[in-house]
Amino acid sequence: MTQTDFTHDASATSWVEGAVGHPDFPVQNLPLGVFSVGDSPPRGGIAIGDYILDLPAVAMLMEDPAEDAALTANAPVLNALFAGGRATITALRQAVFGLLTDESNRAKVEPHLHRAADCKLHLPFFIHDYTDFYTGIHHAMNIGSLFRPDNPLLPNYKYVPIGYHGRSSSIRASGVDVKRPTGQTKPAEDGGMPGFGPSTRLDYELEMAIWVGQGNELGEPISIGDAEQHIAGISILNDWSARDLQAWEYQPLGPFLAKNFHSSVSPWVVTMDALVPFRTAQMPRPEGDPAPLPYLLDEGDQAHGAFGITMEVLITTPKMREAGDAPHRLSRGPMTAMYWTAAQLLAHHTVGGCNLQPGDLLGTGTLTSGEEGGEGSLIELTEGGKKNITLPNGETRKFLENGDEVIMTAYAEKDGFARIGLGECRATIKG
Amino acid sequence: MTQTDFTHDASATSWVEGAVGHPDFPVQNLPLGVFSVGDSPPRGGIAIGDYILDLPAVAMLMEDPAEDAALTANAPVLNALFAGGRATITALRQAVFGLLTDESNRAKVEPHLHRAADCKLHLPFFIHDYTDFYTGIHHAMNIGSLFRPDNPLLPNYKYVPIGYHGRSSSIRASGVDVKRPTGQTKPAEDGGMPGFGPSTRLDYELEMAIWVGQGNELGEPISIGDAEQHIAGISILNDWSARDLQAWEYQPLGPFLAKNFHSSVSPWVVTMDALVPFRTAQMPRPEGDPAPLPYLLDEGDQAHGAFGITMEVLITTPKMREAGDAPHRLSRGPMTAMYWTAAQLLAHHTVGGCNLQPGDLLGTGTLTSGEEGGEGSLIELTEGGKKNITLPNGETRKFLENGDEVIMTAYAEKDGFARIGLGECRATIKG
Repeated sequence: MTQTDFTHDASATSWVEGAVGHPDFPVQNLPLGVFSVGDSPPRGGIAIGDYILDLPAVAMLMEDPAEDAALTANAPVLNALFAGGRATITALRQAVFGLLTDESNRAKVEPHLHRAADCKLHLPFFIHDYTDFYTGIHHAMNIGSLFRPDNPLLPNYKYVPIGYHGRSSSIRASGVDVKRPTGQTKPAEDGGMPGFGPSTRLDYELEMAIWVGQGNELGEPISIGDAEQHIAGISILNDWSARDLQAWEYQPLGPFLAKNFHSSVSPWVVTMDALVPFRTAQMPRPEGDPAPLPYLLDEGDQAHGAFGITMEVLITTPKMREAGDAPHRLSRGPMTAMYWTAAQLLAHHTVGGCNLQPGDLLGTGTLTSGEEGGEGSLIELTEGGKKNITLPNGETRKFLENGDEVIMTAYAEKDGFARIGLGECRATIKG
Repeated sequence: MTQTDFTHDASATSWVEGAVGHPDFPVQNLPLGVFSVGDSPPRGGIAIGDYILDLPAVAMLMEDPAEDAALTANAPVLNALFAGGRATITALRQAVFGLLTDESNRAKVEPHLHRAADCKLHLPFFIHDYTDFYTGIHHAMNIGSLFRPDNPLLPNYKYVPIGYHGRSSSIRASGVDVKRPTGQTKPAEDGGMPGFGPSTRLDYELEMAIWVGQGNELGEPISIGDAEQHIAGISILNDWSARDLQAWEYQPLGPFLAKNFHSSVSPWVVTMDALVPFRTAQMPRPEGDPAPLPYLLDEGDQAHGAFGITMEVLITTPKMREAGDAPHRLSRGPMTAMYWTAAQLLAHHTVGGCNLQPGDLLGTGTLTSGEEGGEGSLIELTEGGKKNITLPNGETRKFLENGDEVIMTAYAEKDGFARIGLGECRATIKG
């Protein structure tokens, strides 16, 4: 958990084939997830190169507390494992690092490695509650300009980490198709009848998923200084949005059917330990912005609370896949485009007494970088559907068509450290 | 499930002491809940008079499917029982009715009756997702006038059953104290700093809880005609609200910390079967209001979809309790004050593909009757905190003080039928 954590050593190598130099999952990463092979029950695993290590199967090769942790991973979700707290995850990660770097373990461990291509990946947690924040200030400005041209950024934005409760039941792991939602849309004229039918303005939203590890009791807030200890890790979140439904329904209580038909999340939980080398200073507040209120203020958090991670959105259309074209990148931007840090989100969420539980999912909100090419949604790229995007094969898009596949990726790079990645969050639109 | 259901016979009597003429729980009601006695594990029970029948303990006195249902109630929550569908609940209810009315069963059944006063009541379901609607049009008008004087009822209100996702983790059964939340409040002047501290405008909201029985698959909406079959039953919900936090945080994505610190729900699930005699016509739409869109329109639902139930809110203060004063009634009004029926709420919630699951909780929103004395919240009774309420002992209130206890009750009365009640939802404010 410090800069001297031996798992961050860029020169460390794993004996697992293809792990060295793997763009996402070298031995310096070791993200946790839930996998199954064939008809076997889903259970906890760790990604290493193009393989998945079966955690419960290698438990007896470790010592407590790592052994106990690996046995706790013998479950269809990782809630109990992460409820054990950060020290447990650290012990497990360091033990696995040892197994995968020391050649002498190879004979015992190798039988418990599965090719990722042969596995099915599941949601890593049972998600009781899902909260979506709105930390991307550039996104908030862009969306605000479309929905409220005269008043894009509301007066509370720079004080309150704005968030709302989302729908847990419709969250699915990467790879599950997304059915285009149906609903009401704004009447064409004042006093006319609303429209009704499949959404014609279906969009993605590029977000980071923050997973809660240890929770808190009802009525007992988590302080900003303690908040990091309650974070299990991060993944990529695509909070699909039906913009036409949203525009009609969202006042006064926020988005509902525009969001609750599906959310997709990448299956690997990249741990806070793996991310230590890539923590960086919070986005500087623009000149004249107020300082965070005391319950959101922490020197260490302001200095190191952000994630130095690059995110990307890519698309393939049915025609592109037929022609064998590579996915086309729609945007790329830094995860530091957050007005609030993850710790600030936890501190705010609980300050009134609300209890978080292990496996709760906090979305950051759409992360738009503020620079050309860093838009985190189509509604921003197409200026509210007024402008076409032209793909390399000449096809155009304003919003998503049936058959389109959206692929989100994220990775961290820094001199002196091995690059690590979050993997992919991908899904295809069905009519 | 029809008017000839023998469990609705007003002349039926139970051998259980005090059950005949019980204001809430005569044998014609038989609501389900989860109880425990001393250190025994929580399990399913049925309220009869001032007693609770231990369902698993009497399972062997019934025949399938009732026996199987009673065994399924041998669990800390009733999700699995209600997931079995309405026919299962009907069979169980009718078998229990037989046990409790036929004197010949007394010797075998009586040992499995526990005095309610000796029992602890728990949340009846594991609540994965909680949705709160806004069906009380009088409440919407009143609140709208306070938050948006120029625009109280937004143009979507009469087309879209407005709702938003709430927080599941902080829902507690009746009787659990409510800790006053802390949070940010609106700056006193434009450009000033927000306030921060314990809420000074803490309020209750009188709502009905609609419990989901059988769910639906993601992407497969529930039609308005089928919706009633997916409802397990109803309870009373108090959706506590911090009005000062709400006013500052709620735009643009809806209420968050203003609501997520606690919600209280009464422990007894009054089944759809018990409610059959009290179903009534939907509130007539005011002249000139649009008809519901086709996916929300069903002749049977418009004719019988509402609940002929009266709800009440009472308060006691520490001084009143010290003096032995009776609770003071703050309001009374009909549950028919809903612009949308329960079936319309389910049809709307799922029309975009969102999946409901057994035990999901749908709140109706605050039910204000539209007549003097029928206000469902203090912010309405005190006109936004401008006016005092004077209690019988001379104390005054604008919002809730520490030590105040709020008690909500509800009951259904109709000529030719036994009165039934929902029991109580009560909780005390702690500082």
